[in-house]
Amino acid sequence: MKSGKNTYKMLGLGLLLSITISCAPQTESETEINTEIETDKVSPGLPSWNDGATKEAIISYVEDVTNSGSANFIPVADRIATFDNDGTLWSEQPIYFQFFFALERLKAMAADHPEWKTKQPYKAVLENDMKTLMAQGEKGLLEIVMATHAGVTTDEFDKLVKDWIATAEHPAKKKPFKEMVFQPMLELLDYLRANEFKVFIVSGGGIEFMRPWVEGVYGIPKDQVVGSSIKTKYSYNDGKPSIERLAEIDLIDDHEGKPVGINRYIGRRPVFSAGNSDGDLDMLRWTDSNELKTFKLYVHHTDSIREYAYDRKSHIGTFDEGLDEATEKAWTIVDMKEDWKVIYPFDK
Amino acid sequence: MKSGKNTYKMLGLGLLLSITISCAPQTESETEINTEIETDKVSPGLPSWNDGATKEAIISYVEDVTNSGSANFIPVADRIATFDNDGTLWSEQPIYFQFFFALERLKAMAADHPEWKTKQPYKAVLENDMKTLMAQGEKGLLEIVMATHAGVTTDEFDKLVKDWIATAEHPAKKKPFKEMVFQPMLELLDYLRANEFKVFIVSGGGIEFMRPWVEGVYGIPKDQVVGSSIKTKYSYNDGKPSIERLAEIDLIDDHEGKPVGINRYIGRRPVFSAGNSDGDLDMLRWTDSNELKTFKLYVHHTDSIREYAYDRKSHIGTFDEGLDEATEKAWTIVDMKEDWKVIYPFDK
Repeated sequence: MKSGKNTYKMLGLGLLLSITISCAPQTESETEINTEIETDKVSPGLPSWNDGATKEAIISYVEDVTNSGSANFIPVADRIATFDNDGTLWSEQPIYFQFFFALERLKAMAADHPEWKTKQPYKAVLENDMKTLMAQGEKGLLEIVMATHAGVTTDEFDKLVKDWIATAEHPAKKKPFKEMVFQPMLELLDYLRANEFKVFIVSGGGIEFMRPWVEGVYGIPKDQVVGSSIKTKYSYNDGKPSIERLAEIDLIDDHEGKPVGINRYIGRRPVFSAGNSDGDLDMLRWTDSNELKTFKLYVHHTDSIREYAYDRKSHIGTFDEGLDEATEKAWTIVDMKEDWKVIYPFDK
Repeated sequence: MKSGKNTYKMLGLGLLLSITISCAPQTESETEINTEIETDKVSPGLPSWNDGATKEAIISYVEDVTNSGSANFIPVADRIATFDNDGTLWSEQPIYFQFFFALERLKAMAADHPEWKTKQPYKAVLENDMKTLMAQGEKGLLEIVMATHAGVTTDEFDKLVKDWIATAEHPAKKKPFKEMVFQPMLELLDYLRANEFKVFIVSGGGIEFMRPWVEGVYGIPKDQVVGSSIKTKYSYNDGKPSIERLAEIDLIDDHEGKPVGINRYIGRRPVFSAGNSDGDLDMLRWTDSNELKTFKLYVHHTDSIREYAYDRKSHIGTFDEGLDEATEKAWTIVDMKEDWKVIYPFDK
């Protein structure tokens, strides 16, 4: 592990803030996405976005770079868009959702590990003693990552995640995690794809944690997911090949790891990038260094009623240096409260 | 480095066989690819393939798994096809073409390294003394890999490869390397794509060596290339981000590394895989373990006149264990001499 901050992001372990939120469903029902083709661009289908500078900036960019008569025209092969996941495509409070998966899995494994009853950090997890768990520090977190994410085959892990995501619910919202995605961002993904952008997730979350469900939830293929990973080992026994997940870090796809992950998996700079925290800043800088016209989008969590409000001092999705740099460089900052008509699909 | 065999494959350093070949251009001119859509399948456009069991097996498979009424129907998202590169999509004799790039680059760098005149393995390269070079063993090879492939930014390396591939020629064929691709395989790639297969390269060659030219040559996007890699490091100085290539192995995408690479980059098992050597066997086994109906294709180099003839005892692209297993399991084996009307596009 490179740093405590990165360990945080990878497992999703932050302070277990007990924020209670009330959900105020919106009454708008502009659900139709208009994808009529006119000459070489596609009409924006962003019904959940309020009219204003943010929406206008997005549309203006897309219409410019897809207009074959524009000096800023971008060939289709270069239309790479990268999206952070936690806090950008779905919520991340009170802690990264992957952490709930890890806790549930640890508890499910406990029957086979009687020694955990007296051994930290497992004891703290089994006793829901978050204070003691936090006191275990980075080493304890890493142990939880490895205990819950390694030691199984890739097929087995895929099934574990699928089973969990099918039913797991957010403790405060009482909604399935997989429904706590941002409706306006789903529309943005569709809008970009309709304009022949190839959309990737580039997340600090685990790549194998995301792959089992992102196709169904975001329409993003498994091979267009970049994330943190552990090493694997192939074996061939009795005519049966399998891949085992090892208790060894491969890539921490956060902060400076995001451009590395983008280079490894995508092989070219994006032209469009979206994030919500300082962990995304290097991805946006990398995007900004593209010679083609680029678009940098930051989602600012400003809605304490419908979602959560946090930025500079949050233990999850800290948005401090990124907020300053985005402001200074006039990157586009989504004000969730002002720019989004609805937050979640179930709010529509 | 894991083994001498893998080092061989990664850099393309084998015995510098001085095979001289004569090129016998074919007279066929069936160049039109028929991609008419009829109901839910696409007519095979494989004009450079002779009629026979091999061509029939390919078409029969594709028509079956793309027929929505078939019990073997494969949803589009699962139509993953993986192709080895060296010896499968382009030639690989007398040595992997990437090695010619490494030698040329080493010589170009020599002016800045006067010490190389007296230091092995550099001295041997500069003096074209292949016998001494071979005697340096794995350690010497690794030094050449790192000297020629690391220590530059990703942008710089991209330019080096592009400049080289634009003009570099095969020593015997006197043709640009980028034209020494197999016409029947280009048609197969097109045929699969027309049937909504997502086509990937999965090669022991360097991922960053392939990415600069595979889009133009094969129509395969950079992000659909899996290959051997070295580690990289992101830095941000004076407001400028860059990624440096480090002298440290990341992934050897050969033999047991191919399923690992497939899992890392693609995240699901292929349904269609093609290779030509024992280095591809684990990829074909991994494909074969898919629950969906799969197709395993081996290209057997049997044409000593139009290309090269080699298999069990070749130092490049050894095809021994793979040949036995493919025969035993009735996988499809292309007999280049019998099955292909032309080898290269310039033969048409």
